[in-house]
Amino acid sequence: MDSDAKLKLMQKRIIKSYAWQRDIIVPLSKEYDCTVDELEEVFFDLLDMGGLENLHGTFKSAEDICLYQKLNADLRLCWFTGTLEVISTEDAKELKLKIIEEINNGKSYDDALKEGKLELYQLLKKEAELRSSL
Amino acid sequence: MDSDAKLKLMQKRIIKSYAWQRDIIVPLSKEYDCTVDELEEVFFDLLDMGGLENLHGTFKSAEDICLYQKLNADLRLCWFTGTLEVISTEDAKELKLKIIEEINNGKSYDDALKEGKLELYQLLKKEAELRSSL
Repeated sequence: MDSDAKLKLMQKRIIKSYAWQRDIIVPLSKEYDCTVDELEEVFFDLLDMGGLENLHGTFKSAEDICLYQKLNADLRLCWFTGTLEVISTEDAKELKLKIIEEINNGKSYDDALKEGKLELYQLLKKEAELRSSL
Repeated sequence: MDSDAKLKLMQKRIIKSYAWQRDIIVPLSKEYDCTVDELEEVFFDLLDMGGLENLHGTFKSAEDICLYQKLNADLRLCWFTGTLEVISTEDAKELKLKIIEEINNGKSYDDALKEGKLELYQLLKKEAELRSSL
């Protein structure tokens, strides 16, 4: 077996692993409307061995960053914090991190978001009370 | 009528306007599980007249920023662009702006996202071909 063939075999073992298939290959192949084989080939060509080995770890941490951005959008924090400045950056950050923790502990995104919106409303009410008493 | 009462009346006219009710008050009161009246009171206290008058405009522009962040998350671009560097920042930006334009032209978020994912897959395949030919 030449070195190219060996490399290909090692790549295959990583990509065929349970965690890879479950978290990356199967969901993305559905999103991209392609077969699992086709997507595996794309990843083989896109990434070198180092990339492949570390990829699953980076996927998990990128997921948290994605969640953070998605919550910012779904809670309309770019409006409440960025434009109106009625929710402080610190409160916004704390709320988002709390929701991410709940999702990582098994709560669905939709349920965690729903609760997060109720907490956001409490923050808005608190700020409204503070401002009306000034 | 004293000046406080006049101000309150002017605020009420803005908040009771069709665009305000449709885009902000009604959807947010559902999200926050409160009545329309309760949410209107919160906004009265949170914002001064200047804020109230400009608010609808800022809401629309913040919506585009929110969309941009949400697409970044839903297309996993923080992973593909930020971590793996297999999609260029320029291509990512172009793709997101194109999807936002389609949403603003009436396409639903889910449909636009679905098409965007297929376009992302084409970008990934193109990059994979390029890398395998090096």
